[in-house]
Amino acid sequence: MDVNSNLRKPLLDSSLERPDWQLSIPRSEGKLWLDKNENLDPQLAKITSSLLSQLNPSTLSTYPECGELYRKIARWVNTSPESLILTPGSDGAIRLTFEAFINEGDIVVHTLPTFAMYSVYSKMFGAKTCPLLYEKGDDDGPILTFERILEHIVQVKPKLFAIPNPDSPTGTVLPLKALREIIEFCEKLNITVLVDEAYHPFHEDTCIEFINEFKNLIVARTFAKAWGLAGLRIGYAVGHPEIIKFYHKLRPMYEVSTISIAFMERMMDYSGEMYASVKRLNEGKSYFRDAMKSLGFKVLNTNGNFQHVAFGEHAEKIHKILKDHVSYRENFKEDCLRGYSRFSTTTVENFKPIIKLIRMGVNNG
Amino acid sequence: MDVNSNLRKPLLDSSLERPDWQLSIPRSEGKLWLDKNENLDPQLAKITSSLLSQLNPSTLSTYPECGELYRKIARWVNTSPESLILTPGSDGAIRLTFEAFINEGDIVVHTLPTFAMYSVYSKMFGAKTCPLLYEKGDDDGPILTFERILEHIVQVKPKLFAIPNPDSPTGTVLPLKALREIIEFCEKLNITVLVDEAYHPFHEDTCIEFINEFKNLIVARTFAKAWGLAGLRIGYAVGHPEIIKFYHKLRPMYEVSTISIAFMERMMDYSGEMYASVKRLNEGKSYFRDAMKSLGFKVLNTNGNFQHVAFGEHAEKIHKILKDHVSYRENFKEDCLRGYSRFSTTTVENFKPIIKLIRMGVNNG
Repeated sequence: MDVNSNLRKPLLDSSLERPDWQLSIPRSEGKLWLDKNENLDPQLAKITSSLLSQLNPSTLSTYPECGELYRKIARWVNTSPESLILTPGSDGAIRLTFEAFINEGDIVVHTLPTFAMYSVYSKMFGAKTCPLLYEKGDDDGPILTFERILEHIVQVKPKLFAIPNPDSPTGTVLPLKALREIIEFCEKLNITVLVDEAYHPFHEDTCIEFINEFKNLIVARTFAKAWGLAGLRIGYAVGHPEIIKFYHKLRPMYEVSTISIAFMERMMDYSGEMYASVKRLNEGKSYFRDAMKSLGFKVLNTNGNFQHVAFGEHAEKIHKILKDHVSYRENFKEDCLRGYSRFSTTTVENFKPIIKLIRMGVNNG
Repeated sequence: MDVNSNLRKPLLDSSLERPDWQLSIPRSEGKLWLDKNENLDPQLAKITSSLLSQLNPSTLSTYPECGELYRKIARWVNTSPESLILTPGSDGAIRLTFEAFINEGDIVVHTLPTFAMYSVYSKMFGAKTCPLLYEKGDDDGPILTFERILEHIVQVKPKLFAIPNPDSPTGTVLPLKALREIIEFCEKLNITVLVDEAYHPFHEDTCIEFINEFKNLIVARTFAKAWGLAGLRIGYAVGHPEIIKFYHKLRPMYEVSTISIAFMERMMDYSGEMYASVKRLNEGKSYFRDAMKSLGFKVLNTNGNFQHVAFGEHAEKIHKILKDHVSYRENFKEDCLRGYSRFSTTTVENFKPIIKLIRMGVNNG
């Protein structure tokens, strides 16, 4: 049989090839993991560990019941359960959005650089992409203005406009007022807007307040970042019930696993602890940022749980010193972030030895 | 905005509406749950509970690494990691198959009655379905002959032919020899065959042995049934590496959750205990079947972890007596199973009180 002739055409795109998990090398236990924007705050981990130990083992062996979790999330985000669908992370909400709206040949606009899956899903569902490139600004980092967004949208007239807010890896945000205007503008052009709020509430602004007003808006959220639960693959999409009812038509047999549902059902009662963790991590970020500035390094004002720093002429030396102690993202190659390295945020305590090592790198120079 | 005009057309199908989780009533803790073909064998649950308590809490907060699990599953099914893709249950493998092959308007053949998602995914991806109906046989239950399958396939020439083996709710199987001939026949017609082996190894035959021979074959598997892990939403698709490489192009950011991967990585070392549990449940099934026969009820020879019994004139009374003690599927309405009720298999110990209740129902008649 000729496999290729039977496949959906977009799958023949060779650039859609994905990393081979076989070749992935697990991160060393001895290092601090600041490369994937997880929340590994030890104090929050105490709570999640304790909830894990209290989990009813029947969550392993039984199919899910998720009504109660829908109700709890709805209360927390101040909306109705009918405005929600559970998804495997915000990634799942993004994928559902492509599945709901994108036919082969449709145009998608997403920012660039951004979360890798926007480009992947565009290819997977056969969309043409006209990305909106961040420009290299001054020391304040990547720039994408409200005006340039509108201009691009008018020009391209996409089916879908996707923008994470905060965006990653740029760490940039748009003000809510600007986002609202973009959504309103897109509504007139019949364009769906996907706002990915994976980093909420590291950045507290949210477009969820607009969902009843606009039927062209979908907000993606995850419990992976602020809630420290990247390992559960659970998130949700929020939108007007008239859109969400179509998203439910795309539901697999079960949205997510029983164990993740049962865990989150308990964890929703600990939103106070999640906020406290966000506060600790933001303090850690300020502390790290100040230390880097005092060493003369350029830093960016990022709004997610990560911090960019440009080590300049010291870069090579510092990377060498940090190598055995911390995993992080070295030297972005994209124009708008060139020369910056990214550290996921951790606590002041955890940042202290890293800062010490970086200082060593500078002083031994 | 007109939401509907922007959606992919298949989503406008109103029959694609799905159950409202809000209305779902969680099963009572006090009952025996024999309604969803889970494996709730207490002895297996001891092992899974113990593994749960040993789980590293960092599996909650970190993104997945799945190379090792791919290697372990590959060893267990005697294939290569390149022939595998992890999915959220066998349901995920089924969905991926639709996503890989089905364009709007393509024809899909699946059996009927069968797992509900075949019809759902057909609608979701805009396929036309020409189902293969089981006929009402004599006391041996639903019948679908090899000859009728071939005849139907020749007539309809579908893009995809999907058949669970064992099928559910019918509990029927095709011999491997017949399946191999169907796959070979479909290969000549350029038809992809999806064999859903969710109930393996309650029924030990497997088409995985054919994957290197046929590039039109995909086998779906899950850890939900025999392994007793319905709550983890983890399964896999197996196929020729040339097909599976395309399935990887459809991968979301991560296939399944870190916690499910970490759990299964450990659990794969306990395949002996899984087989022992399957043996216990099969003994329970025989015990229950014999008891029902001795009461004069018709039973079917099913190959999954479930047992059909027709209570005949005693049905109403027995359902009333069992109501507060056990959840099960009452009185199928489909022609080929009319009058039968289905009990998921449990141990001899667990079946004893149920049999006692049923006997009471008969004697008080």
